[in-house]
This record gives sequence, structure tokens and C-alpha cells, in this order.
Amino acid sequence: MQETRQDRVHICEVVARDGFQNEAVFVETADKIALIDALSETGVAKIEATAFVSPKAVPALRDAAQVMAGIRRAPGVIYSALVPNLRGALAALEAGADELNLVFSASDSHNLANVRMTSTESLRAFEGIFGLARAHGKPVAVTIATSFGCPFEGPVEARRVLDFYRRCLAMGASGMALADTTGMGNPAQVERLVDAALALSPATPLGLHFHNTRGVGLANALAAYKAGARRFDAALGGIGGCPFAPGATGNICTEDTVHMFEEMGVSTGTNLSLLVSLSRRLPGLIGHETPGQVAKAGRSCDLHPAPTR
Amino acid sequence: MQETRQDRVHICEVVARDGFQNEAVFVETADKIALIDALSETGVAKIEATAFVSPKAVPALRDAAQVMAGIRRAPGVIYSALVPNLRGALAALEAGADELNLVFSASDSHNLANVRMTSTESLRAFEGIFGLARAHGKPVAVTIATSFGCPFEGPVEARRVLDFYRRCLAMGASGMALADTTGMGNPAQVERLVDAALALSPATPLGLHFHNTRGVGLANALAAYKAGARRFDAALGGIGGCPFAPGATGNICTEDTVHMFEEMGVSTGTNLSLLVSLSRRLPGLIGHETPGQVAKAGRSCDLHPAPTR
Repeated sequence: MQETRQDRVHICEVVARDGFQNEAVFVETADKIALIDALSETGVAKIEATAFVSPKAVPALRDAAQVMAGIRRAPGVIYSALVPNLRGALAALEAGADELNLVFSASDSHNLANVRMTSTESLRAFEGIFGLARAHGKPVAVTIATSFGCPFEGPVEARRVLDFYRRCLAMGASGMALADTTGMGNPAQVERLVDAALALSPATPLGLHFHNTRGVGLANALAAYKAGARRFDAALGGIGGCPFAPGATGNICTEDTVHMFEEMGVSTGTNLSLLVSLSRRLPGLIGHETPGQVAKAGRSCDLHPAPTR
Repeated sequence: MQETRQDRVHICEVVARDGFQNEAVFVETADKIALIDALSETGVAKIEATAFVSPKAVPALRDAAQVMAGIRRAPGVIYSALVPNLRGALAALEAGADELNLVFSASDSHNLANVRMTSTESLRAFEGIFGLARAHGKPVAVTIATSFGCPFEGPVEARRVLDFYRRCLAMGASGMALADTTGMGNPAQVERLVDAALALSPATPLGLHFHNTRGVGLANALAAYKAGARRFDAALGGIGGCPFAPGATGNICTEDTVHMFEEMGVSTGTNLSLLVSLSRRLPGLIGHETPGQVAKAGRSCDLHPAPTR
């Protein structure tokens, strides 16, 4: 496992969307903008800045348009927005999103619970969004939620996930992500599904979206990396908990993920010290401690004075 | 990564030693005994029941002899005790430990801070303990602490760790463990060191002792498994925090480790439900929440009712 610097990993920072979406408190618009602007300086490849969703369903992100309009665009960083439907897509494009991220679930029951459509119905509804984005000259990525398991149905067949993957590519997806929405995946399964997805379309940018709900998030990221994945969603501080698991951790933590890869000799192109300092400001925004470890323990290279006797 | 059931993993449960050792409150002797007796029914291969150390240095384990005398011995489970010196070894053998676990650090500064001897001086002092154990017909395992990094010195050369490993085997160690004492290791390094240790002596039982201080504990366990390791120390609830990292997680969490391996199709021989129920009792013993995730989130197979509309 001697990695070369060419095998670099790209981080998509999702704290402002998947992180804040799950918080009880509303993070002020100016604070969101300041955080995203600071994240723009850390070297992350992409920032999922917000979601254009129903303000009733997700009040935490009701300021999506103001956030997207207020942030400073750093060269080389992609500012994406999650959109659930045509209305959201239009709003995101008007607000200047660089990329739309469409999400649907591989399991019907989860998709029905979220958007009152089966998975296939969601895919059909995406066609209009693809058309709209094409007209605006903007790329559309698709995230397949519950790819590694559904909290209502249990295991989701890899064949079903891969069939959806293929159909999204046929519709014109510029990139794909496989999401372990409630942290049910395991490294062996991750390796198999990443293998299969990359075999299906080696040139498609493939992101992995892991949650650390059962403690195995970084092990899954490692397994995905070993299978060839190079793009990972992660949230500063590891926030973004699961509604089914009060007290459980959320997304894999950006600074912990970066620390693991950099320690392995795999570049992430990011400034870890800066990420850690931003992470340490999060409790002030959300009112509670975060699950991230490196922000508490420091980097492995941060040494301690030996006790004198 | 299709594992076979033959590739089973052995768990050495260290909560009663490495876990409780780091707690501010004294866990009552009867509670320790009851927990160890319950752990004996979970299918773990080994239980590090206590440490025979100076009661002044580690008051949390001042009842080592009573614990060792009070526990019920389940057939097939090895009850080991950590010992730092000849006095501790004698006490452990008299108290009926099945196995002694000698610990020293691969870095001089860490070993000096702990026992006021260089690493090599510790090894020399172990000779008398090996002789004593032989006279009692008991096996001696050796754990090399700071094998993946020292909080005072930083990186520890693999060559140095492997030299100590070889010398311990020459002295008659029945098993070896490589410990990431303060959670500084990374998966690439783990893979290399496990590879090298197994190449040095393929037949020696090799345990890995990981801390999750920087969130990478299970990724390190995965890397060690892939490199051929099959024995892991773990603590119920993931307790056993690091003195240098207030708020950081401790040992890799037994139930999270078991969950990861079992989900991968790798048997651990343990009863996960029982482990989870024991873990959920820990906060009552130590007075605070624990870092383990599966005890909060449930197993991946524990499904939720889909919302009705």
C-alpha cells in the first residue's frame, strides 16, 4: 500500500448542507456564508453550499438563495447545490450554482418517505431537470441514497443500485455518488460496489458519501479508496447525524478523513490546520460538541513534551 | 474481498483494564467481576481482566487480586493480566492469571515516562518474568506500545519495533501485540508493519491494539485484517481515552469492531446483541456516555418502520 502523490483524493465539503440540515438551531445566513468562504480557502475541491428544498420541510436551509448569492467564488472550487425537483433546480440555477446534485434513494420505501415517489418515478422526474440544466450549460451530478442499505428495507441489491447508476449516466449525469445515507455499509460491500461502478464507467467521477453512524465511516472510505475511488463527501466536525440514531455521529468528518489520507501519504490538496481551526469554531455555531476526533486530539504530528522527572 | 468464515477474528476484551484504568471514578470490585463474568458469555477469546500495577500509580485497578480471584472462569476463555514488573508478575500468577501480558514502549521517552527505564532496559527486566512464568507453566505475551508513533518523539522506526519484536520472541513470548497507544497510526503504516511482523514469525499469534484517538481505529483494524492479522484488542463502549487528548475516544470499540467484521462476513465468534446490551450498562458504571456507535445506532440489520402517510 505505497500510495503515490498522483493518487490524490478530492474532498467535497457538505457541512453547510448535510451538516446544517440536521441541526436543530438555524445557523445564521451570514455565518453560513463566512464558513463557506473560509472553506473556499482550505483546498477542498467542491462545496455543497446548500439545498434548494421546501423551507417547510427543511427550515435550516430556508436561506439557500441568499447563501448561494452571498458566497465568494474561489477559482477552482465547484459550488454545488442539492435539488430535489424542477422548482429547486430552477432556483439553484438562478442563484448561480455551478452544479446541481440530484438525490434519490435506491430503495423505494426510503424514496417514498422522502419525496413520495418510487425510485423510478424520481428518475423520470429528473429528465426535466437534466434538460433545464443543459439549457443553462450546467452539469448535473446524481447521488444514489441508501446504496449500501435502507433503514426501512434493509439490504439493497447491488444490481438494483448499478441499474440506477447506468440509467443516470444514460440521462447525462456528469458525476455520480453512492451514498450510505444511514451508515449501514461495510468495507467488503463498499469494495464490491465501487469495483462494479468503476467497471461500469471508468471515466465517470465517482464520489462516495459515507456516514459514520456505526463507527465504520473511515474504514469504508479506506475500502473505497483501495477499490479506486478518489472523491469523498465529508462534513467538517463530522456533523450531520441520522434521525434514526440520536447521539450517533453524522457524515464522515472532513478533518479526520483528510488526516487519515495525508498520513497514508495520499494528498487531499487541503490545508488540514485550517480545516481543524474551522472545525473548532463549529460548536459556537450549532451549540454542541461535534463528533470529529482530530479537532480534539490534534494531528499525529502534534507532539507533547515528555514529562520531566 | 470475499472473506470466508475460516478467516475468523479473535477479540481480546480490554475494557476492565485499559478502559477502567483511564476512568476518574473507581468501578466497584463487584461491578468489575460482574462485567467480566458477563463478558465471559459473549464469545470473546480473551479478557484482559486487570493489571497488577502500583495502586498508587493506578488506583482504578487497586483491586486486581480480588478481581482475578472473584471472576468465574468460562471454559475456552483466556483470562490475562497486564504486569509491568516481577512483583506484578508474581502477584498475577498467585491470583491465577492464565497469561501475563508484558508491556513496554518501542520509544525510549515513552517507556522512561512510564517505568523509568529505556526500552532495552525493560526488555532485560522481562527476563526474570519469563523465568517466573515458565516455573508456573504460564504463557507470556508481550505488547509493544507506541509501535505506530510516540506522543513525545513522533514516528517510531518500523525497524526498531521489529527488532524488539524479534527479541521478545527469542525470550519466549507466546504471543505478541503491536499497540497504537495514543492513536497515531494510519492504515498504510499498519499494513506495512503487520506484513513485516507476520513475515518475521508467521506462526506467532499477533494481536493489534488500536486506539481511535484520531477516528481511524477501525480503518486501521481493517488494514491489519487485510494484511493477515486476526486478533484485536478492543474495549466495550470504546472507552480508554488518551491522557493527551481530553474528549478523544479510547480503544477501538468492541461492539463496533465486531459489527464491522460480522457485516463483512468475518466471524468473531461473539454474540453482538449481548455485547451491545453490556455496553449500554457502562455509563451507569463510569458516569458518562461512551464513544461507541453501534450501542447508540443499533446494528445495520435493526430496521425502522417506514413512515405511513
